Amino acid sequence: MKQPIYLDYAAATPLDSEVLKAMQPYLTDEFYNPSATYLGARAVRQALERARADVANVLGAKPAEIIFTAGATEANNLAIQGLMQLYPEAEVVISAVEHESVLAPAKLFKCKIAPVGKDGIVDLKALKKLITDKTLLISIGYVNNEIGTIQRLNEISTLLRQIRIYRGKINNKLPIYLHTDAAQAPCYLDLHVSRLGIDLMSLNGGKIYGPKQTGVLYIRAGIKPKPLILGGGQESGLRSGTENVANYIGLTAALSKAASLRQAEVKKVGGLKKTFLDGMQQITGAIVNGSQKHSAPHIVSLTFPGLDNERLMMQLDEAGVQAAVGSACSGSSREPSHVLKAMGLSEKAVHSSLRFSFGRATKQADIDEVLKLLKKFTA
Amino acid sequence: MKQPIYLDYAAATPLDSEVLKAMQPYLTDEFYNPSATYLGARAVRQALERARADVANVLGAKPAEIIFTAGATEANNLAIQGLMQLYPEAEVVISAVEHESVLAPAKLFKCKIAPVGKDGIVDLKALKKLITDKTLLISIGYVNNEIGTIQRLNEISTLLRQIRIYRGKINNKLPIYLHTDAAQAPCYLDLHVSRLGIDLMSLNGGKIYGPKQTGVLYIRAGIKPKPLILGGGQESGLRSGTENVANYIGLTAALSKAASLRQAEVKKVGGLKKTFLDGMQQITGAIVNGSQKHSAPHIVSLTFPGLDNERLMMQLDEAGVQAAVGSACSGSSREPSHVLKAMGLSEKAVHSSLRFSFGRATKQADIDEVLKLLKKFTA
Repeated sequence: MKQPIYLDYAAATPLDSEVLKAMQPYLTDEFYNPSATYLGARAVRQALERARADVANVLGAKPAEIIFTAGATEANNLAIQGLMQLYPEAEVVISAVEHESVLAPAKLFKCKIAPVGKDGIVDLKALKKLITDKTLLISIGYVNNEIGTIQRLNEISTLLRQIRIYRGKINNKLPIYLHTDAAQAPCYLDLHVSRLGIDLMSLNGGKIYGPKQTGVLYIRAGIKPKPLILGGGQESGLRSGTENVANYIGLTAALSKAASLRQAEVKKVGGLKKTFLDGMQQITGAIVNGSQKHSAPHIVSLTFPGLDNERLMMQLDEAGVQAAVGSACSGSSREPSHVLKAMGLSEKAVHSSLRFSFGRATKQADIDEVLKLLKKFTA
Repeated sequence: MKQPIYLDYAAATPLDSEVLKAMQPYLTDEFYNPSATYLGARAVRQALERARADVANVLGAKPAEIIFTAGATEANNLAIQGLMQLYPEAEVVISAVEHESVLAPAKLFKCKIAPVGKDGIVDLKALKKLITDKTLLISIGYVNNEIGTIQRLNEISTLLRQIRIYRGKINNKLPIYLHTDAAQAPCYLDLHVSRLGIDLMSLNGGKIYGPKQTGVLYIRAGIKPKPLILGGGQESGLRSGTENVANYIGLTAALSKAASLRQAEVKKVGGLKKTFLDGMQQITGAIVNGSQKHSAPHIVSLTFPGLDNERLMMQLDEAGVQAAVGSACSGSSREPSHVLKAMGLSEKAVHSSLRFSFGRATKQADIDEVLKLLKKFTA
C-alpha cells in the first residue's frame, strides 16, 4: 500500500527521529527519579534543568519561569484556573475562536467572549470594551488551530500596558495578565515573550514533532497561579508528580529544533501553501476561511459549498490523503466548529469545511495530488 | 566503572524492554491524534481502547471505568479534588501515612487524619471514630511507599458497607467512597477492585517498569468526579488533552506484565527481603520499621540509631549502592518523613532512617554486598 499523504500536522506531528534519539537515554539507563539524591539521580535532575534552560532560551525567558506540564491542555488549565481561583470576583476575557482547553476552563469563571471578524481576527475595539476594572486575565491564542489565523498579541499587550498604568492611577490593585496558547506557533513564529508582551504562554510538544502530552507553561516571574495538581512539590510546586524526564527532554529538543529550522520552514511550508491556494482558485466555489494576510504557513481552512465535509474527508482518505474535519481535539464531540461559526459561517458552510495542515515532510507532489483529488471530488 | 546496585525501585523503575517495544510503533509510525477521523487515526484509537480493556481486565473492572492520566499524582488529585468539589460541606478522611499527592489535595478540604500504630497500620477503631455523617471519601494507600506496609482495605470497605446501610436507614443521601493509591501494589498484590471493595484506585506506570507520568484512575461506574483539566473532552471528559497513546500502551503492557509475573516476583523478591532482614540482625542496633507481617516484599525501612541517614546514603552511593533517604517524591523538600513520624519515631530516629527497595533485577549478590557495606559503615 502507498504511504498516505498526511495533511493533518495541526492535529499531531510525527516524533522527529533526532528528538527520539535525545529521549532514548532517559527512557532506558537514565531512568532515575530526579528527586532522589544519589549521584546518578542528580545527573538526571541536571539534565532536566538543562532542558528547562534551553526552553527558556527559545522564549527569551528565565529557567525559573518555565513549568513543564503534561500537555498544552494542562498548561492552559493551569494558567486560567490557577489565576482565576486566586481572585473569585475577577473576570477573564477570551476570544470566540479559542481552543476548547481555553474555552472550557474560562467558562468555570466570569468569562467574556471577544468576537472575531470574518477574517477570524479578534476585534480589538470589541475586546477593549469587554475589559473592566475586574478583568484579571485575557487569553488569546497565538495561531488558531483550525484556520491558522495569527492574532495581534503585540497590540493586545500594548493595550494591557495602558490599562496597567490606568489602574495604577485609580489605585486598582488587581493585576491584568495576557496569556496565549501558542501550541501551533513554535515551528513558524517568534516566541520571544518580551517582544510579544506575553505574561503566560502555553506550548505543546505533540504539535512540534515532540512527544505527546508534554507541555510548557511560561509564567512571568512574580506571577503565582494556584496549582491544579498537588503533591511532592515538583515544578516549583505548580505541577506535582515524578517528572517524565525523557518526555521533557524530547519536548525541549523539539522546541529547539523548531526554533532553529523556523526561517527555512516558513519559506518551504509557506511556498507549499501558496501553490495549494493558487490551485484552489481552479476549484469552483471553494472558499478559503480566515485572513490570509495574518496567517501561519501550515494551516488552511476551506469551505466547499454544497458538499458534506465528512464525506469529502472519507473520499480523500480512501484516495490516500488524510485531512481534518475541524479540530481533532474536539473530534470526538462532532459538534460543528465553534471557530468557523464565530467567523459568521452558516451551520451548512461549517459542515462543508475541511482543514489541511502541512509540515516538514509535505512535498510539492503531495500538494499536486491533493489538488487533483479535490478537483475530482468537487466536480 | 562497576554498574551501581540499584535499591530504590519504590522511587522509580527502569522501563521494561518489552514495554518499550510495545510503545515503539506509537512513538513513530502510529503517531496520529486518536480523535482524528481518517482510518489511520481510528486504528490508533482502537489500540488505545484495547489498552483500556486490558487495564480493566487486570482490575476486574469495565473499560469505561478506566481513566488514563498523566501519573498517579494526577489520579490522586482527580479522585480527591474531583469528588470533594462536588460536596463543599463534606469531609475526607485519610491516614497519617499517605503520600503527599493524597495529603496535599485532601488538605484543601475538610480533612481528618486517621492515626497509624507503631506498625504503620491504620488504626481501624480510630478511623471509624473519624467518620461522620458528612464523610464523603476515605483515601487510604494500599502499600506504603516508604515502609511497605499493606493496609487492610478489605476491612475498611466492609466498614463502609455498614455505613452505607446505616445512611440508607437514616435517609442520609451523601455517598461514601473508598479510594486507594495503589501505586506500589501492582507487581506484588491483588488489584481486583471488587475483591478489595474499592471505589476508586490510582495506579502509576513509572513504578511498575512502565513510562513515567502515566497513570490510571479506576472509577467505579456511577461515580462522577469533577474534572481538573478541561478541554477537548478526552477520557470521558475527565482528563482532556490529546492522549499520549504510546505512553498509555506502555503503562498497559507494564501492568499486564506485572500481573502475570506477580506470583513469581512475590516469591523471588520476598526471598531477597528475607535474607536482607536476616542479615540485618547482625547489624548492631538496626531497627526495621513497620509491620513485617503485613508488608509488601519490595520495601524495607531501617533505622540506624545514632547515624545520619544522608551521610550513610552518600557512603553507600560512593560504594556503588543506591538507596533512598525517605521518599523521593518529597526528596526536594528535605522535610523529615511524615510517615515515620506518624509511627512514633523521634525526629532523630527519622534522620537515621533509610529505605531500601528491591525489584526485578535485584540479585542475591546485591543483597550480600549491601549487607557487607552496611556492616562496615555502621560499625
